[in-house]
Amino acid sequence: MLNGWEVRYFDPAPTADETLARTLEKARRWVPEIYDGLPAEGQLTTVATIEEAVVGVDWVQESTPERLPVKHKVIATIQQACPASAVIGSSTSGFMPSELQAQSQRPEQILVTHPYNPVYLLPIVECVPSPATSASTLDSAMATLESIGMKPVAVGAEVPAHIGDRLMEALWREALWLVKDGVATTEQIDDIMTHGFGLRWAQKGLFETYRVAGGEAGMQHFLEQFGPCLSWPWTKLMDVPDLDDELIGRIVEQSDAQAGDRSVSTLEAERDANLVALLKVLREQDTAAGAFLNRVAAKPQTRSPQ
Amino acid sequence: MLNGWEVRYFDPAPTADETLARTLEKARRWVPEIYDGLPAEGQLTTVATIEEAVVGVDWVQESTPERLPVKHKVIATIQQACPASAVIGSSTSGFMPSELQAQSQRPEQILVTHPYNPVYLLPIVECVPSPATSASTLDSAMATLESIGMKPVAVGAEVPAHIGDRLMEALWREALWLVKDGVATTEQIDDIMTHGFGLRWAQKGLFETYRVAGGEAGMQHFLEQFGPCLSWPWTKLMDVPDLDDELIGRIVEQSDAQAGDRSVSTLEAERDANLVALLKVLREQDTAAGAFLNRVAAKPQTRSPQ
Repeated sequence: MLNGWEVRYFDPAPTADETLARTLEKARRWVPEIYDGLPAEGQLTTVATIEEAVVGVDWVQESTPERLPVKHKVIATIQQACPASAVIGSSTSGFMPSELQAQSQRPEQILVTHPYNPVYLLPIVECVPSPATSASTLDSAMATLESIGMKPVAVGAEVPAHIGDRLMEALWREALWLVKDGVATTEQIDDIMTHGFGLRWAQKGLFETYRVAGGEAGMQHFLEQFGPCLSWPWTKLMDVPDLDDELIGRIVEQSDAQAGDRSVSTLEAERDANLVALLKVLREQDTAAGAFLNRVAAKPQTRSPQ
Repeated sequence: MLNGWEVRYFDPAPTADETLARTLEKARRWVPEIYDGLPAEGQLTTVATIEEAVVGVDWVQESTPERLPVKHKVIATIQQACPASAVIGSSTSGFMPSELQAQSQRPEQILVTHPYNPVYLLPIVECVPSPATSASTLDSAMATLESIGMKPVAVGAEVPAHIGDRLMEALWREALWLVKDGVATTEQIDDIMTHGFGLRWAQKGLFETYRVAGGEAGMQHFLEQFGPCLSWPWTKLMDVPDLDDELIGRIVEQSDAQAGDRSVSTLEAERDANLVALLKVLREQDTAAGAFLNRVAAKPQTRSPQ
């Protein structure tokens, strides 16, 4: 809607109007700060039925609760009224598209289009087709998302929880162990993220970060070093994949393609400049890391050398 | 050294001088941009033996390769020459302090003080004592680290790989599965981080993020909802902790303490303001997310409403 689209909105919840108003208020407050040159807002209409919402549309976004019978029922109603040419994207974070398609009359128009909160600020959307999703549905979904300023990623195979939620789930599970075993408190874990590796991941992902860590010796060397560690202290907690030659080779290849012609020292210089910029801006913001840095900066360095 | 300390440096590697010079160059370039009012640099002296490096010092930082026999040998040499009052901090990312102390003459002065790369920009340091580490050693280490602008976290119990590396290891293992199974490429995973949850974690940690996600219903409600998911599609990959009432209660309590008197809507407003600031600065930097946002901002919004 903020991108000029006409939107029809159906939500049977008694608090629907309030939820919509609060979300719109935040989106109108923040989206123009990030995205220059937004078009005039499209019309938003709240409607009383699913059928009214979906008749004649280009796109249906299904964001019902994470219960498969509910989703099947809603999708059936949607498909009775929407055009066969529409994209039906599901916000589901857990279900695979083939599960959503199981009882549908036109599986080819259904895929997962999973955004991340806050949706009005985080650009990423996971686009997950099943083998039954048509190529034109995926292409159309990707093009539409790009046209409204989102960053779609076409997921290579359907798995429960797609990509980002699986990664976060793994970290979350480990964090639960650490809290349960008294190794760390929730605040300590958050501090280690916001004053540590969270600052990395806002500007370089996992693999590019490790690429830099590996130095000029390269990803192959880094991964071969890492291999033995994977089967070492953590096996008591969980199963691990074999970091065999095939997997090492695949990661090296993909990491090479990702880096293009940028050397490790170039990537490292980028990383440093990015971190400085992030830390500077965090100092101006109301964040734990910013408050900490301001305290450090404001305090005279009184510790005398020995 | 950049904080006014006199530093003696010993590294037997043939490339030691070059490594030191390159690291110092980066630290001198970037540290003053983040930390205002640095004192005059302390003196840096490269020395030829461990003994020369540690005699009469307040602090010894041991950063040898991750091989326990090497560390035992080096620590023995250190303790023959350094004061009993010195802190001996180890940069080890994998070993527990009790492992380092196993053959030492004064275990009470040894603990893990584990920083994160790039050490000159990321403030976090995990301080891990064993039961044999004296309270005064931990207190002294914490105070010294704070005095030079680092953010020390006193880890509650020693476990292999401490806290941050365990969290990253869990995510890394899941990322390896995703790459191995063809679900995602390294670049897609990095994109999902840098255009998605990495932006969250640079300014709010895991638990505070989930606190916001849970909304006004609170952490208890959020965790109870989350419980069933933990034993659902991911059990095929690994063992999971029981999210029982005791653990839920502990997390709720710690999360409450962490939030203090800030309501969820306050935390949410902070989060949004922080993300805007980060995204703005990323647009000015050489990052994937910034380049993407600039492309989006520069491109006229041509998609017409249907």
